[in-house]
Amino acid sequence: MESKNTNPIQSKKIAIGIDIGGTSTSLGVIDREGHVLYEKKPAIQTPSKNENPDGSKLKSEEILNTFIQTIVTEIKNAIDTVKKTYSDIELEGIGIGAPNANYYQGTIEQAVNLPFIGIIHFTELLRIHFPECPIIKITNDANAAALGEMIYGGGKNMKNFVLMTLGTGVGSGVIVNGNLVYGHDGFAGEIGHITTVPGGRLCGCGGLGHLETYCSAPGMVRTAFELMVKYGTKSSSLINYSFKDLTSKIIFEEALKGDSLANETFEITGNYLGEGLADVVHHLSPEAIFLFGGPVAAGDLIIAPTKKSMEKHLLPVFKGKIKILQSQLPKDSAAIVGASALVWKACEK
Amino acid sequence: MESKNTNPIQSKKIAIGIDIGGTSTSLGVIDREGHVLYEKKPAIQTPSKNENPDGSKLKSEEILNTFIQTIVTEIKNAIDTVKKTYSDIELEGIGIGAPNANYYQGTIEQAVNLPFIGIIHFTELLRIHFPECPIIKITNDANAAALGEMIYGGGKNMKNFVLMTLGTGVGSGVIVNGNLVYGHDGFAGEIGHITTVPGGRLCGCGGLGHLETYCSAPGMVRTAFELMVKYGTKSSSLINYSFKDLTSKIIFEEALKGDSLANETFEITGNYLGEGLADVVHHLSPEAIFLFGGPVAAGDLIIAPTKKSMEKHLLPVFKGKIKILQSQLPKDSAAIVGASALVWKACEK
Repeated sequence: MESKNTNPIQSKKIAIGIDIGGTSTSLGVIDREGHVLYEKKPAIQTPSKNENPDGSKLKSEEILNTFIQTIVTEIKNAIDTVKKTYSDIELEGIGIGAPNANYYQGTIEQAVNLPFIGIIHFTELLRIHFPECPIIKITNDANAAALGEMIYGGGKNMKNFVLMTLGTGVGSGVIVNGNLVYGHDGFAGEIGHITTVPGGRLCGCGGLGHLETYCSAPGMVRTAFELMVKYGTKSSSLINYSFKDLTSKIIFEEALKGDSLANETFEITGNYLGEGLADVVHHLSPEAIFLFGGPVAAGDLIIAPTKKSMEKHLLPVFKGKIKILQSQLPKDSAAIVGASALVWKACEK
Repeated sequence: MESKNTNPIQSKKIAIGIDIGGTSTSLGVIDREGHVLYEKKPAIQTPSKNENPDGSKLKSEEILNTFIQTIVTEIKNAIDTVKKTYSDIELEGIGIGAPNANYYQGTIEQAVNLPFIGIIHFTELLRIHFPECPIIKITNDANAAALGEMIYGGGKNMKNFVLMTLGTGVGSGVIVNGNLVYGHDGFAGEIGHITTVPGGRLCGCGGLGHLETYCSAPGMVRTAFELMVKYGTKSSSLINYSFKDLTSKIIFEEALKGDSLANETFEITGNYLGEGLADVVHHLSPEAIFLFGGPVAAGDLIIAPTKKSMEKHLLPVFKGKIKILQSQLPKDSAAIVGASALVWKACEK
């Protein structure tokens, strides 16, 4: 008897998805339906600015060349591994999610968390090693996730939606008429940096009061401490944590146990997020807004106050129309799955 | 000798542009290049909710039927007039700008300033009278203006831009990849209703602190009085005006004469607008933002502080990239010219 999944003569179209993060880089092989056929996570430690074991500084160019070489090796390993199951592999393309990626230019530009100085022509550097590969595309991780949601996830039958990623920061990807919005310069979808509280909290970008400073995971921690400051209370279990040690996950766990300060933190986070999402709706009138990331695992603890606040801030014509949904991307592989969606989207054209 | 413009045998493709406003409705005949061949402004008084001379109430349906009939007569008059110059007329379509218009459905829905109750199938009602007309489209006035900017104006060579109309309210139209963004339900582009000051000024829509309450013409008047309240000054000429009588035009004229409170009003308006436009950029990364409407006539008085404030609020990746430009639509005919652009845009497809 033949097993469909292990038949070595079965042909398979595949895409490589690569997620370049500040600390590590992951990689996977994904088919058109979003199945992860191979995954290495993390595959590579993203190089830091000072890479030599003896502490001497490496040149940006050397770091980059080594990094590209390692990625190429990992891609080839990945393909070889998948070939053991599907002998007839068709590599449709390579999709990359990375900070400060410019879709139009195929570049990573001035990324503060990566050791590459200036403008890196990333897709060109990969193309040298894969000259036959039909598609090599790059965009930022939230844009890639939005494409993933459309190609494989809850946005499959939608033409207009927005995906917000709540994590270390707040990222976003905007789908209009079935296409990702890259804007004029390739950098559209930075909704985490809209102003939520004029003159408010300092953002990592240097701005003040951005949505990210209230609705990211660290933003929730800031809110929890703001509440401790406000109430001067000793009745919350959160008073046992340092600013360094408290996480949105701990706040979630304590909220489930009934801690009222933890619950209020979710309520306030939802209030801010809902107000921000109303701004999004007033720009784009999407069918749905998908939420992705750590804090979203709290489900209705975060989604209920977000919905309520969004509805309160909407024009009458939009009230009761906009769905707020949890992302349907696989939680642990979302970054590489999203990156691979760049390939299938490019195949459509 | 033949004059090119008056040759009666010259063939001409034309579009009708109709602008339905709260008090009056205007209409024009426009060619592909944006030339206004005929214009009647106002052509019709938009009916009020109580139309009978004797004060008795008319039914919404009667009002609507009479209104449609008058529009049809005016369209036919307009075409007949243009035929005197161009005997061989090809009517390509009718474009309508109206409050609360739904592009997808061809409807006007729940428009508070119009006497039509519920959902009016406006394009269908016109089609009964023009069954051969290839295109009949409707959208809101700011969306129409954005299309006009793309088809005839400063956005001709742009694929991604936003147009903001500053007038009685603040409207907007969003162009992405060369198309107007209608969103899922046909109502996208209500950027005037993003929250600028949480818990701030009461908006006509019932919301608080919306951009419109700070950057519309009446918003500027509110700011001027806010400054009088703040300073308790007697040194500004604006203290001579009642809240009812002060206008953004008067503030402009006094600013030119050197009135410092009037100048500060522009400065503050620009600060708010620039912050709002930074939010727009963080969503859409447009090539340019066009400004249209009364307050924009003040030129650098409003544009300089707007630019400065926008730049201050932008992520580094967007700084110095986004143009703020005055609309190039003809000031007095922009509404009908914009509405007619719906037709040429639909012809492209």
